[in-house]
Amino acid sequence: MSGGERELIKRIRESVGAPGRATIVGIGDDAAVFEPAPGLGLITCDAFVDGVHFRRDFATLRDIGSKCMVANVSDIAAMGGFPTRAVVSICVPEHITESDISAIYNGMLDVCRRFSFEIVGGDIVGSPHDLVISIALTGAGSRDRIVTRSGAVVGDAIMVTGRIGGAEAGLRALTAGLPQEGAVLAAVRRHLRPVPRIAEAQAFLDVATPHAMIDISDGLGSELWHLAEESGIGVRIEEDLIPIDESAIAVADRIGCNALELAMGSGEEFELVVAIPRSEMLRTMEHVAAVTGTTATYIGDVVSAAEGCSMVRADGSVEPLERSGYEHLGGVDGGGDGE
Amino acid sequence: MSGGERELIKRIRESVGAPGRATIVGIGDDAAVFEPAPGLGLITCDAFVDGVHFRRDFATLRDIGSKCMVANVSDIAAMGGFPTRAVVSICVPEHITESDISAIYNGMLDVCRRFSFEIVGGDIVGSPHDLVISIALTGAGSRDRIVTRSGAVVGDAIMVTGRIGGAEAGLRALTAGLPQEGAVLAAVRRHLRPVPRIAEAQAFLDVATPHAMIDISDGLGSELWHLAEESGIGVRIEEDLIPIDESAIAVADRIGCNALELAMGSGEEFELVVAIPRSEMLRTMEHVAAVTGTTATYIGDVVSAAEGCSMVRADGSVEPLERSGYEHLGGVDGGGDGE
Repeated sequence: MSGGERELIKRIRESVGAPGRATIVGIGDDAAVFEPAPGLGLITCDAFVDGVHFRRDFATLRDIGSKCMVANVSDIAAMGGFPTRAVVSICVPEHITESDISAIYNGMLDVCRRFSFEIVGGDIVGSPHDLVISIALTGAGSRDRIVTRSGAVVGDAIMVTGRIGGAEAGLRALTAGLPQEGAVLAAVRRHLRPVPRIAEAQAFLDVATPHAMIDISDGLGSELWHLAEESGIGVRIEEDLIPIDESAIAVADRIGCNALELAMGSGEEFELVVAIPRSEMLRTMEHVAAVTGTTATYIGDVVSAAEGCSMVRADGSVEPLERSGYEHLGGVDGGGDGE
Repeated sequence: MSGGERELIKRIRESVGAPGRATIVGIGDDAAVFEPAPGLGLITCDAFVDGVHFRRDFATLRDIGSKCMVANVSDIAAMGGFPTRAVVSICVPEHITESDISAIYNGMLDVCRRFSFEIVGGDIVGSPHDLVISIALTGAGSRDRIVTRSGAVVGDAIMVTGRIGGAEAGLRALTAGLPQEGAVLAAVRRHLRPVPRIAEAQAFLDVATPHAMIDISDGLGSELWHLAEESGIGVRIEEDLIPIDESAIAVADRIGCNALELAMGSGEEFELVVAIPRSEMLRTMEHVAAVTGTTATYIGDVVSAAEGCSMVRADGSVEPLERSGYEHLGGVDGGGDGE
């Protein structure tokens, strides 16, 4: 990037728009200043690196900007909160143009608009090689609606929102160069433009008392393990109950892999995995579907830690649950371990 | 980094320590959850890239971690706030070891301890090439003590905390390989372990009504321009009044450059530039020095925008003020434009 930097900043300030009513100082000072929402504050962060977390030959920079923001919003959703304000640092190597940066911002702003929150600050710095997008997102929630990963208890029903496998199927379809039509196109869209489950989390909270909640960023298998470890319990899920997305079945068929394995290891789904009292299960399924249009499917039960994590196969045999999916270098979290 | 990642995370969690009383969910979940401090919320972010913002041959990773955190704390100080919680994303190339990451964390934690705030979350991800440290820092402030860059008015006195030039002098001394003793050593320390001016900002606010405040991250010349542009005013400062650090004079002498130019362009000083009503100047100088041990020096006046930004030289001649110092690719800010 060379010259015209003031022009770029002006363009970004313009596309971000005027700050919201509760934001006292927005973009343009040492720090943003705001009136905190009533209730509790939330904060999460995630970094996304070109060639590691996204590929520019598969996705536009607008898609990439959108997905980075969605990953953060999904973390807030999984705690039972709403996103409020984001700050964004972008490290740009020489070959990234100003209009590339605008495209990244436009993708992030797509998500801001859809979920009614704003970008209040950021930093654009040069880097020798890697394009890196780092987002920190604040949120708000009320004390009686915060859900952690660590509260699941034996006997809880485990539910998952939506259908899974589409995100990984989309990536595999792009990698294999499958023609983008029908189910393949649906998978690709799912991979490029995932949707965080803010409304679905709230619908759970409206009619149930979720004990634990986590979003699928690394893969369902992996998230179930996280839930089990943090809650000090085990899980037993049933193969037949896993809601595999049709697009995943179609892509698995074309590329010749197992659809269940693909679905269990599919990261960046941003669906929610929720542990709730069994007695609340039926009314929750009904309510979540009615209010959000998203299914909430029962996939198994919370069992004792001694029983560990397992999957009951279609033939009735029981296997250890694979910790499949994308493994991070390390999540230090709280502020998001990329999950 | 390979294997032992759980060990690393465990070590980081241990060194970060238990969350503070107002933090309900700390490291380890999708997002951190906390009880916001009374008053207004602040947020800023900055990214630091190896080879651009720091050099591993000059500084230890602990120094680097410390300085990245200080830059963020300094942004909060310059708004009149206190730091409360940080989230940290680190992108690590192959050659970075787990103990390197621990060292970065230890440097950040040095600053957390000194200024009584905590790290509540983070993300550690792989990167193909560049080591990148991204920090987002929240803060708290009260409505009547928030100071922006944009409120300076004609007639205000412009003051600067401490003495300037040491940070750049330290970098130059390291680059030139000067023996690290006496004034040179002082400059190097200033470069490696700068101190944010939280207490000094508060001391200003205790006895004066600052109209505008900014921290020196890019260089005094550059910050005065920022202040002028954001406030819609001009500035006239006097060469003779600039409090050049002795270490800068010593290093300038050794390497044969102009100490004033070095001081005016010295970035990462993290001293504050403050515009206050002239009538409050004397009692402010006295109070800031008495309470913090840091000098507050009058360096010139706010003039009309039409008069522009100028420096009165020692011989009485007037020159346009140079926009010297480190120029960022672009600050989108609010959440910190690296300033």
